[in-house]
Parts: sequence; C-alpha cells; structure tokens
Amino acid sequence: MENSTNIAVSQVITPAELLAHWQGHRRVTRRTIEAFPEDAFFNHTIGGMRPFANMVMELLAIGVPGLKEIVEGKREAFNEDFKHDNKKATFLKLWDDTTDAINTYWAQLKPEQFQENVILFGQYEGTVWSQIFYFIENEIHHRAQGYVYLRALGIEPPLFYVRD
Amino acid sequence: MENSTNIAVSQVITPAELLAHWQGHRRVTRRTIEAFPEDAFFNHTIGGMRPFANMVMELLAIGVPGLKEIVEGKREAFNEDFKHDNKKATFLKLWDDTTDAINTYWAQLKPEQFQENVILFGQYEGTVWSQIFYFIENEIHHRAQGYVYLRALGIEPPLFYVRD
Repeated sequence: MENSTNIAVSQVITPAELLAHWQGHRRVTRRTIEAFPEDAFFNHTIGGMRPFANMVMELLAIGVPGLKEIVEGKREAFNEDFKHDNKKATFLKLWDDTTDAINTYWAQLKPEQFQENVILFGQYEGTVWSQIFYFIENEIHHRAQGYVYLRALGIEPPLFYVRD
Repeated sequence: MENSTNIAVSQVITPAELLAHWQGHRRVTRRTIEAFPEDAFFNHTIGGMRPFANMVMELLAIGVPGLKEIVEGKREAFNEDFKHDNKKATFLKLWDDTTDAINTYWAQLKPEQFQENVILFGQYEGTVWSQIFYFIENEIHHRAQGYVYLRALGIEPPLFYVRD
C-alpha cells in the first residue's frame, strides 16, 4: 500500500485524469459540431481541405477502434469513410455512443500498459500513451481547423478552455 | 531503488517523455512558421482571426514564462504583444531560444510537482500537468489554424505526425 501511494503521488498524470481530460476535449468537439449550420457541416471547406463532417468521421474512426485494439489486442479496421444520412444529428448520436464506449474500454486498460509498445490499424507503432495522446491531439488539430471554418462563416466557435 | 523502478514502470508518461513530446510538437510549429511566406506570416488572416505571427507571439508568451513561474513560483507577466521587426527570422530566433529555455527550466521541475496546484499569470489555476498540457494543446490548436491559413494560400503544411 505504501508502494501504490508513492506511485500515485509521483504520476505526471493518472489514467483517470487522462480519460477525464480526453472526454473534456470531446465535449468541446461536440459543441463545435453543434455550432455548424447543417449544410456547412457537410459542405463548407477552405483551401481544398475536407468539410468538418469528414474530419469528424476520421475522429470517430480512431477513438473507439484504436482504444479497442489497445485493450483487446486484435487488429481493427480503419474506416473513416462510412455511409451516413447527411444529418448532423446522426453524427452527434455517434459522438455520444463513442463517449460511452471510450469509458467502457478505458476501464479495461491496465496502468502498466501505457508504456507498452503497440501497432494500431496494422501500421502505427508507438507506446500506448503516445497512441492515446495522438488520438486527443489529432482531435484538437482538426477541431481547430473547424474553428477557422466557423470563423469564416461568421460563427463564434466554442471556448477552447471550457471543458465541462 | 526497487521503489523507483516500480514508479517508472507504472507512469502513464514520464517527465522526460512529456518534455520530448512537447519539443517534438514545437519542431512541427517551427516548420509551420518556416512554411509561411514572409508577408503572409504577418498579414494573412481568415474570418477576422489574428495573423499567424500573433498566434506565435501568444505561444512565446506562454511557454517559457509559464514554465518559469511553475519552477520558480514567482508571478510572471503575460506579454503576447511584444515589439518586433516584422521579420520571420526574428520569430525563428525567439523560437529557438525558447527551445533551450524550456529544456533548462524543465530540468528544475520535480516529478512530484506535476500533481500540485498552481495559479499562473495571476489567474489560471490548475495542476502543473494540466498547465503544461494546456501549453502544448494551445500550440496544437493555433498551429492547426496556421495549417488552414497555409492551405488557403495554396501551401502544403508540414506533416502533423512527423515530430523529428
């Protein structure tokens, strides 16, 4: 018990804190999806980039399948181009399903796994922490591009630092 | 020694890994600055947002002063609007000076500090890890906006996932 107390105190960030941090960012991304007008979410672009809907499809293709592969060790397919009905409500539903699934898989992740090396989707190799950081940071990266799309449309994006 | 070995194995991410991760992102941001044409770096905007130079000034105002305040415990001024000579070379020089200064201050950061609560710049309160995550993620956020500026200019941004 002495030992585990020491471990907890010396953590830069605990697994529970990292999960809460990720879900906080995911709430901001959800608000970013909500801020888009229905058509602009699927059609608005700048400089030949993808519409924000396609970036969100990428995020959905990474979060749960990536975490599931880390936890279960079975290769997952990377599918960022799924069929949908061009409705924002469908994306928000998928987003919320993902929130629950991330919590479920996270509970199966062992603290000692974060420093282990894994290959995801058959090609991306790195420690588990670096994979999860990539999931979060890739989301921040694309969401920030969504912020520029919103500004170009004259719409105020959600506050970056409010994570509730 | 048994004890510290256990601690190292159970870390989600070690202080050294977090520093290397941050500096990896900072190399990508440096390449983003380099990718801008001289005048566009200071003038190009979308949707009423700041030019990328001003976003970089914000990043320079956060990184070293924020880390210095964490390490030394003395309130730092937040100065994101410093005088400059409208030259990208000046910003790249400041960027490289910041790289060295971050390494220097990081060496003074103790592992047990990451879970401590601090107030930075007289107003931002949170654990040390959350402050440093904010520094990194705010950089990712604004750099991604720089990526859209570059795309709008017909310029290919640096690869997000190459951190060398």
